[in-house]
Formats: sequence, C-alpha cells, structure tokens
Amino acid sequence: MLSLLDLRARIAAGTLTPAGAIDLCRAAIAAREPDLHALVTLDPAPAIPETGPLAGIAVGVKDIIDSAGLPSQMGSSIYAGWTPRGDAAVVSRLKQLGAIALAKTTTTAFASSDPTETVNPHDPGHTPGGSSAGSAAAVGAGMLPLALGTQTAGSVIRPASYCGCAAVKPSFRLIPTVGVKTYSWALDTVGLFAAGVADVAHALALVTGRPEIDGADSGSAPRIAVVRQDFAEAPEPEAEAALMRARQAAERAGARVSDLALPPELAQAWERHRIIQNYEGRLALAWEYDTQADALPPRVREHLDAGAAIEPAQYDDARRHGHHARRVLKGLFADYDAILTFSAPGSAPATLDSTGDPRFNQLWTLMGVPCVNVPVPGQSLPVGVQVIGRFGDDGRTLAVARIIEAALRG
Amino acid sequence: MLSLLDLRARIAAGTLTPAGAIDLCRAAIAAREPDLHALVTLDPAPAIPETGPLAGIAVGVKDIIDSAGLPSQMGSSIYAGWTPRGDAAVVSRLKQLGAIALAKTTTTAFASSDPTETVNPHDPGHTPGGSSAGSAAAVGAGMLPLALGTQTAGSVIRPASYCGCAAVKPSFRLIPTVGVKTYSWALDTVGLFAAGVADVAHALALVTGRPEIDGADSGSAPRIAVVRQDFAEAPEPEAEAALMRARQAAERAGARVSDLALPPELAQAWERHRIIQNYEGRLALAWEYDTQADALPPRVREHLDAGAAIEPAQYDDARRHGHHARRVLKGLFADYDAILTFSAPGSAPATLDSTGDPRFNQLWTLMGVPCVNVPVPGQSLPVGVQVIGRFGDDGRTLAVARIIEAALRG
Repeated sequence: MLSLLDLRARIAAGTLTPAGAIDLCRAAIAAREPDLHALVTLDPAPAIPETGPLAGIAVGVKDIIDSAGLPSQMGSSIYAGWTPRGDAAVVSRLKQLGAIALAKTTTTAFASSDPTETVNPHDPGHTPGGSSAGSAAAVGAGMLPLALGTQTAGSVIRPASYCGCAAVKPSFRLIPTVGVKTYSWALDTVGLFAAGVADVAHALALVTGRPEIDGADSGSAPRIAVVRQDFAEAPEPEAEAALMRARQAAERAGARVSDLALPPELAQAWERHRIIQNYEGRLALAWEYDTQADALPPRVREHLDAGAAIEPAQYDDARRHGHHARRVLKGLFADYDAILTFSAPGSAPATLDSTGDPRFNQLWTLMGVPCVNVPVPGQSLPVGVQVIGRFGDDGRTLAVARIIEAALRG
Repeated sequence: MLSLLDLRARIAAGTLTPAGAIDLCRAAIAAREPDLHALVTLDPAPAIPETGPLAGIAVGVKDIIDSAGLPSQMGSSIYAGWTPRGDAAVVSRLKQLGAIALAKTTTTAFASSDPTETVNPHDPGHTPGGSSAGSAAAVGAGMLPLALGTQTAGSVIRPASYCGCAAVKPSFRLIPTVGVKTYSWALDTVGLFAAGVADVAHALALVTGRPEIDGADSGSAPRIAVVRQDFAEAPEPEAEAALMRARQAAERAGARVSDLALPPELAQAWERHRIIQNYEGRLALAWEYDTQADALPPRVREHLDAGAAIEPAQYDDARRHGHHARRVLKGLFADYDAILTFSAPGSAPATLDSTGDPRFNQLWTLMGVPCVNVPVPGQSLPVGVQVIGRFGDDGRTLAVARIIEAALRG
C-alpha cells in the first residue's frame, strides 16, 4: 500500500516531488485498475499544488461525494454524467491542504447494498465490501494513499476490513457531509481510508483542523473492553481469530483488557438502526423513488420500499432508543478508553453478488462514536478488528488502535 | 392572502378546480410581482395534478431548495443558471401530495443577510426581512398560499412577522433538509409560510405524514409562559404592543399566562449561536469561499471570515452549551405548554439595506424547538408574536398559536 505519511516524509525530505507522488499513484492505477474496477472517473490533468501539508497526496472520492469538474454519478444510471457545480466540504478542505482529488471511486447505488463492479484486491472472486467499495479497494490495492468513504450502516469499516487497509469512521459530523448525497441524515458519516492507522490519524487531524487528533496519547495502560455484540448473529472463525489476536496484541502492549457484555439498551438500539436508515432513505431519495423507481437496482429499492412502510411513530421510537443508548454508552466509557470488537463477520465473502454484512457496524454508526479498522495480518484474506471510542474522542481512539496495530505487526 | 384551507375547501366542494386555483395565483402574481420582486423563476407550464390533498396548491420554493427543472441560484451569481437534477426531499413530498412548485422565491445569498431585491408587500420602502424574503413576501402579498423557507438564525419567523403571514419553523429535522443548500447543519431548518396558523398546521401535517399535528388539542387552559429574552437588546414599542395584545388574547381565550425569566443557561447558549453558524458556514461554503470569494456579497463574506477565525474548541464549547441548554429548556416545559415571545424586534425596518435582526429567533433555532409566527392585527405595518413549544410537540405548539390567533381576530 502507499502510505500517506511515507509519501509526505519523502516529499518533505526532497526525495520525491508532489508530482512524483501522483505519478506513483498513476503507475499503480495503470497496473491494477484494469482488473480491479475501483475507479469511476480519473482526472486526466489535475493541477498539482507544490505546497501544503497534503501536497502530493492523491485522494479517491466516493462517487456520492461532489468534486468540482468530475461527475457525481451515485452508482446509478439516474445520475449518469451528472456534474456538480462545486466541491463537497471535505473535498474543498483536502484541496486547501494541497491534496488532489485524482479519482472518483465506485459506490453501490446511493451507498446502499447493490454490488459494484469492483473486486477485492486480494482475490478477484471476493467482494471488496460496500458501499465504499472503490475507495477501500483502491487503498487496499496500493493505488491511492487516501480515499473518502461514507458509512450509514457499515460502509467504511467493513470494506476496509475486507480490503486490508486502515479506516476511520469519525465521530458523527466531525467531517461535514455537505456535498455528500444523503441516505440518512441521522447516520451518514464521512470516513477515511489509508494504509495504516497513523496515516488515517494524520489525515483526520488535518481535514478537521484538530491537530490534537494526531499522536494523541492512549495512556500507558489503556483500559480496553472486548465486546462480542452477542445480539448479532455469531461471526465466522476468521473474525474470531482476528479478535483474539488483537486482544493478545493489546495485552502485550500493556493494555488492561477485559470482557464487557453490553447492556440491553444497546441491543435495543441496534435492532432499530435499520428503521432509521430506511425511513430516512425513503424521504431523502424521494425524487428518485417517486419518479424513477424502475432505474433503482433491487436492493436499494427493497430498502426504500421497506422505508415507505414505516410509520413516523416507529421512527420516533427508534430515534428515542438511539438517544437513550448513547447516554448508556457514554456511561460505559467512564470505565474504558476503548472498545475492541469485530469489524465484519469474517473475511470478504467469496462472491461478487453481495457486499457482505454490516451487522457488527450498525450499532456504532447509530451511536455516532469513532470507529477504526485495524488490519490483522496473518490470514489468507484480510480481516480487521474494530476499535471504538467515546464520542468526540477520536484522537484517543486512534491512539489505542495504533498501539494494537503496532503490537500485531511487532 | 390566499388561504390554503379555503382553496382546498373550494376544490373539495367542486366550486374551484386545481387549475383554477393556480390561475388565482397567476393573477395575483401578475398584479403584485412587478413591484414586489419576490420571485426568481416561475414555471411557465407546470403539470397540475387533479387529485391529492394539496392539488391546486401552488408553492413558492426558496431559491436554495432544489426543485427539478427550475434553477437553484442560491441568491448568488456563483450559481447563475444552475439547475439541479432532482427535487429536494420536501419538494418531492409536496408534489406527491398534489401541490406544484410554481415559483422559486428570492433568498439572500446563501440564506445569509445581504438583502434581495424584494420589498415588503405592505410598504415598498421596508424590508420584507430575510433570508426567506421572497417566500414571506409572496405569501404576505397573497400571491401564493404556501411557501418554503429555511431558518438558521431567524429567517422564517422574522420575515413572516414583517410580511404579516403565519409561519412555522418546525422541530429540528422534522422536515428533511436534503436538497437544501447547507449553511449550518446544526441549525438549518425548513419552515412553511401560509396565510394563517391553521393553514401552516394543515400543510405541516401533510408534508410530514403526521396527521396528529393538524388540529392537535391545546388543552382547555394551556399554560403559557411569556418570555422577554432580556439577554437580547430591548425590542421596539410595536413589538412590545404586539406581545401585550397577544398575551391578553391568550388570557381571554382561557390560557393560564405567567411571566418566565429564562435561566442563565439559555442566555449562554444564545450568545454562542453565531459561533456555530459561522464556523459551520465556513466549512459548508468552503468551495465558494476558497475559489470565488470575490463573488460573495459583503455580509455573507464577513460572516464566513468570522467563521474562519473560530477555533474548533470554541465551536465545541458552543455546541456543548447548546446541548446543555436544550436539557434545561426541556425541564422548563414540564410546567408550560408553550412560550410566548417576540417574533422580531419590531415591524419591518424602513430600509432595503438590511433584512432586520434575528436576535429574538436565534436561541430557538439552536434549541431546535417548534416556533410559530402569529400575525397580530391592528398596527400600520405587520408585527407578529412567536409561540414556541417543546421539541417534537409541533402539534400542540400550533394549537396554542391557533387559539391566540383566533382570540386576536375575535
């Protein structure tokens, strides 16, 4: 993979120019993209800033996120050729930092669950996950050092786990969603993919203008709760093995690790995630659903049909359960610095007909808390684990993820 | 003014067709618009549905809200001729109900505070208010029975007060903001303008699919707290007189009215409203600010300059004060069914160089609670009062507003 920090260090040292860093991406794209199908459009001749803390960093932008001059096609024929006027807020910010939006990356239609043409960079018979398929695959394949995704259920952490890269789904609205196609305004969260945890931490600190996120201290002996999410169907052996290895790595690194059974309020919120997602999706995509339903692929249409059948009172009840569970979770974090749990039910499924299952991600998206995927080396296909922190404590969450990542590698 | 309920009653009775109702609007527009300048674009030949609970209702859509086929020009040369692909969620919903988006209405640039060309329908030397200038003026002038606005500080309630129509700024996110240009994601709220409180209540119930909002019961003797917002500069005599008349009307209608001094947490939140607005505005409008600052008119540019100087920690502090104040306000509503306060500092200022002052609206936008403007008859220029309810209790808030409106008229 292309490490953002490594590229930036070489640029700072004068051994690589920003244009040279972009050329590295182009070469990797030329080699891998014909088989991977991770990119929708590529900027043929972007202006490359010479300065800025992200000069030389080529970013992949999920195709529901606006980038001026490139189409935003939402993974749907309904938006074929559609070109926005300006940049999404996060893209503007990246450009302000010197980065370039080199490519739009594939997304399932409207960031739902109908697969894209992208394949897993580690085995083309396996899904890269979704909905941020292209961003995860492009970073996992070493084509780009940074990519933007969004998560409404599990669309950042799960594809990162499947594609073997690091990713962060930050605290809710830490990165603005302005200029991002909405599916669920209560859930949609912009996230970042990069080679390692330090790379995503560095990028998140810059994007948010919050330097304290980068290199935050995890404490000498962080208190980590291992959570199995028993309310969801049991995971596969690969995910179990990854969680066990990460737990042992955390212990080796000096963390105080204990098991935690989540209180029932959290299971109750998890059960209601999809009510919020589908109800809001039906409203957010009203124009598409009302005027061009035939152009919607089957899974997103099924989700929107389900949304159309949800009464406002059910939605209100689901939102109340979410609010209540957030308070309960906040209380739990008085005793823990981070939660360690599954990123996905297993390695990437051996199919291109599904993007996998977000069941270990939905609760945390609804809670709005920061989540980090840490790749766990040593299995034939990538599997990651998920490190979760308290709302607004993205720096510490990334710091804990980083010591686990280091201990897993060491 | 054109009453939505009256038009619908005539259509239901067979004495008016939907096309006839639209013709009434066209005739009023032909008579008033040349002097008023409230409309940006007019759909020359919209398809007019024959059925649906809002068939025959022509809606004015603030020009930061997408309506398929009509440009969304944001009150800014940066978006001259810009046409969105589809409808905003609220516009789709209105069309689903049989309404038509007849016109886009003027907005200050990006719904900030640089005046539009629109004049007050009651006196062309006075501002109609802003930022939803065209929507308030079009309804106040009797050109349209329903219009959409947005409020980030005071952009729905204040222009309604100045233009003499009813309006509701509903609970935060009760109407989706999908397809609405973002200024502040924590504050932007879609609202409705119509002739009377019953008209806005009926429209809100339909738009949200929550029939209980319409005709909700205020109780036989609602408990109303009169709040003066002493933390803001004192209002003018016209606003004082309107509040006094509304208070007396509420008492005549059987309400139990008492004075309430708000606890200091609410003043502290009010003081921080603009920090949130400006900080988020700078991020939301990053593309415009970074690439076309010279095309921004002076006031929005000044607000964004201010936003650029706000540190994340100040913003976080402001958000925390907002959260805390919401909890305090929720507690206050244990003892009251509604708050009655000023809608604006006075009648519309005698100038076209300012859209007036949102200081009596900002707190309530930040609190996310439902606010209703009730016109108070009997002054030379319109003045309204503001009825405010607890979060999610839009029906009761509108019911209290309705009994005050009736008592003021009676």
